[in-house]
This record gives sequence, structure tokens and C-alpha cells, in this order.
Amino acid sequence: MPIDLDKALGAEMDSIPFTYNEDDVILYALGIGAGVPPTDPAELAFTYENGLKVLPTFGVVPPFPALTGMMSAPGIAINPMMLLHGEQYLEVKKHPIPTSGTLITRPKIASIFDKGKGALIIVETVTSTEAGEDVFFNAFSLFVRGEGGFGGERGPEPGNEPPERDPDNEVEMKTLPQQALIYRLSGDKNPLHADPSFAAMGGFDKPILHGLCSFGHVGRAVLKTYGDNDPARFASIKVRFARHVFPGETILVQMWDEGEGRILVRAKVKERDENVITNAAVTLNI
Amino acid sequence: MPIDLDKALGAEMDSIPFTYNEDDVILYALGIGAGVPPTDPAELAFTYENGLKVLPTFGVVPPFPALTGMMSAPGIAINPMMLLHGEQYLEVKKHPIPTSGTLITRPKIASIFDKGKGALIIVETVTSTEAGEDVFFNAFSLFVRGEGGFGGERGPEPGNEPPERDPDNEVEMKTLPQQALIYRLSGDKNPLHADPSFAAMGGFDKPILHGLCSFGHVGRAVLKTYGDNDPARFASIKVRFARHVFPGETILVQMWDEGEGRILVRAKVKERDENVITNAAVTLNI
Repeated sequence: MPIDLDKALGAEMDSIPFTYNEDDVILYALGIGAGVPPTDPAELAFTYENGLKVLPTFGVVPPFPALTGMMSAPGIAINPMMLLHGEQYLEVKKHPIPTSGTLITRPKIASIFDKGKGALIIVETVTSTEAGEDVFFNAFSLFVRGEGGFGGERGPEPGNEPPERDPDNEVEMKTLPQQALIYRLSGDKNPLHADPSFAAMGGFDKPILHGLCSFGHVGRAVLKTYGDNDPARFASIKVRFARHVFPGETILVQMWDEGEGRILVRAKVKERDENVITNAAVTLNI
Repeated sequence: MPIDLDKALGAEMDSIPFTYNEDDVILYALGIGAGVPPTDPAELAFTYENGLKVLPTFGVVPPFPALTGMMSAPGIAINPMMLLHGEQYLEVKKHPIPTSGTLITRPKIASIFDKGKGALIIVETVTSTEAGEDVFFNAFSLFVRGEGGFGGERGPEPGNEPPERDPDNEVEMKTLPQQALIYRLSGDKNPLHADPSFAAMGGFDKPILHGLCSFGHVGRAVLKTYGDNDPARFASIKVRFARHVFPGETILVQMWDEGEGRILVRAKVKERDENVITNAAVTLNI
């Protein structure tokens, strides 16, 4: 098996420096659909350098290169075409998030679970300022098709099931046909999101949106609905990527307020009535 | 008068280095509305690094800082709020346009005309590779309100009047509500294009699109209609900025084929049936 549990578990990978400026922060915000003045003037703070604020889901951008680093980590040799992004957890540790600077990410392989049809690798990353202050914690859950059945533990269930009642709030977010092309300038250059021939190899009719782009839409929707568009209110987000979104489709974000700043979330593609993000929760500082 | 003709005319300003990469080329293309796969797969070449081509109107980006430099050039002291971008001429001198590198722009004040209500200042720029090979020539025509009446020459008429017949071709280009926010990441950070309060000071109900963004749309429309989306066919473009476009409006580009690669152009805002770009021509290599 190309995953050697003993070597891989707990393996620390090279730390990753990430230098960014205000334009990168704005480009990320536009990549997840923010910034349509004057319809929504509150969102101008995310897309304009005068009074700029960082959308909290930007926190997945600095550590993103850890995902490619993982494929050559100790004890791991896997085919990137067999990789699916299964879940994402992000915690914001410092407010306000700096609008520019250099951050350092330290990634490690925290867990490897046996899901039968594949292995689930959890890469945990801590992203800090150069002075050593933590800014973001992430857990990237990566499903590797074909690598299961090694007799390992199945790991925890995803949780965050919404209640039976209708959603307490819904936000419709129409994505742009160019959404993936804009989003990929924030660092995830996987051709699956731009090139029709790569999309076809992946079994899709056309290029699909990045899971983390839908994730950013969900984060925006909750921040707008329950957090007054104030990034300092944002504590954490957890999602499961259930299915793809095509650029141009409408993401319908459904929210249930469970009290004490805990919002359960599900997102559908409106046009196809299919769940794309499930088992999701956002925690807000109250 | 804050313009001293003797000092200003022919004044050469500091040369401007501009370093860019493939992401900057892609971001410019998205800024002028390119890249909606799979509807228009030909345009993917402008928005995807695999086989990337540079849209020829990118040629206004490297010399753009010359405009701000002009306001403190020898013999000139003008209020930037009184400045309007009147006309633009761009000539592409080298094909293919490099997709990354460092270019050097040498700007000078070529002419100053007296238009009665204002002065028209022509800033000419030559943009070259570090090895000294010319890539772009630009003439930026800047109208300075309130600075006319100094007894200077009126200068040439704009020319490029379209014939009486209906256009030979039309292309409708719907801009995005976020179009100006994306375009400004290519370097023109004038708050008029993002901030409702600055737009109000300029007499507009909301932020307006950059003239050079509409200009880029016109260039794309002609290249697509008559140039097979091949940037190497593009020789030059000249436009007059007649009126503003609001982000989200539809630019209707009307074209008349005058033969031998000469295309006369007019652009309207479809929703308001107003001319926004007039006296325009594109020359294609045949």
C-alpha cells in the first residue's frame, strides 16, 4: 500500500511561508463572490482597500500548498487524480486578520482513517505571524480513493446534522460563470477548475467550482446573516463537500440558528436541487 | 495658469518599470470580461496558464502609472479631480506579447492643446523589454477641465467617424456588477470606480467603470469578430471616451469593416442607448 501508516502518522512537513498584500485579500473576496456595490455596500469593506477587512475564510489560502506537500510526505505516495477534498475545518485564532504580511504554516499529518473504499487523511495546519502569533488553524480532510481496507479505524462521523424544521434563514448566491477562474488566482491552480479536457478526465461535463470556493460562499452567507458582516465575529467553520457546483449555478445556503452563536448549515445547488455542502456548522463569537 | 507650456512640452518623465506574471495577465483578461468557459472556449487562452495568450489591450497597463506621474511633471500642477481621460491610442509593436517579465516605460508630454473649456495633454509612452525591444506605444489624451483659453492650438479632430450604413457586426458584452472591482486590481485604483462617496463627488449616482475597461471590451469584441481571437493579428486601437458605463450594464460594440484590416467602432450602453466610445478604430494585421 502506498500509505505507510507508521511513517505517515504525525509526520511534520516543511513549513510554508505565504506573503500577501491587500490586493490578494480583495482578489480572494471577489473569488468567493463578494463585492457588488452599491447593492450591498457592507461588502465593499471586503473588496476595497479603504477600510479593508479580511473575509475569515481567507484562512484556508495561506496553508493551501500543504495539500500538494502532503502527496510527497513521509510514508505517502498517492496519485493526485485519486484525491478528493472531503471536509474542511477552519478556526480563526486572531482578530482582526492582518490585511497584508507574511504568515508561516506548519502542516502535519494528524490522522489516517480507513473508510473502506478509500483512506481519509487529515492534514492539520497551524498558520502564524512571523512573530509566532497563531492566526488560523485548519484541518483538511482528504479522501484517497482506492487506498482503504487496511484495517484502520473508521474515524468519527461528520455530525452537524440540521434539525427537521425548515431553515431559519436562506441566502441565494448566484455564482459567476467566471467564478472558478477568479478563485484559482488565490492559489488552487488545479486545471479541473478551468480546463474542459481535465474536467472530462475527472468525469465532469465541464470545469467545476473549487470546493473551497463554495465553502467561502457559505462563510459569507453566515457572516452576513448572523454576524453583521463583521469578520471579528467569526470563530470557526466546518463543512463536508458532498457534491460539485458548476460555475454560474446558484448556491442556496440554508441556516439553522442553534443558539449561542452556533449556526448549522447546508448548501444546495438551486438549479439541480442537490446538496453540495452538508454537515456544516459555523461558530460565531457572541 | 498651472500649466507652463514651455516647461511642460516635450518634458520627459521618470521611466517606469513594470514586473508582471501570468496571473497578472489572467487577472487583466478577467477584468475586461474575458473567460466564460465553456461557452466561449477560444477565450480560455486568455484566462488559463496552459497556452496563455495576452489580450493586446493589456498594453495600457504597464504605462498606466505615467498618468499619475504626469500630474507632477515639469511645468504642470493640476487638480486630479479636474482630469478626464479623453482618448487612448495603443499600438502593439511586438508579437507575441510576453506573458511575464519586466517592461520599462518611458513617458513624455508630447502635445498640449487648447480646447477652450480645458487643456488637452497628450502623454506618449514607449514600453520596451529590458533588452530594449519596443512592445507597446501609447498616447494617453487627458482633458483638464478649466485649464483652456491659453491661446494654444486646438489640435486635430478625433476622426474615425463610422459610415451612414448599419453596422456590419455587433457584439453585446454584459459587464459584471463587480467588473470595476476586478479591473482596478490591474493598477488603476482611482476610488471613483469603487467608492460610492467618491462617485458622488464626481457627479455620478454610483461608481463607474474605468474607461480603459470599456476600451478592453471593445478590443476583445473586434479581435473575436475579425481577428479569430488571435492577439498577433492586433496592430492598433484608437478610441474616444464619450461617456461613462456603470458596472453591470451591457456594452454594445458596433463595427464597420472598412477593408484592409481597418475596423471602425462605436460602443453604446444598451440599457441607456448612449454612446460611450466613439471615433474608434482598430487596425488588424492582414
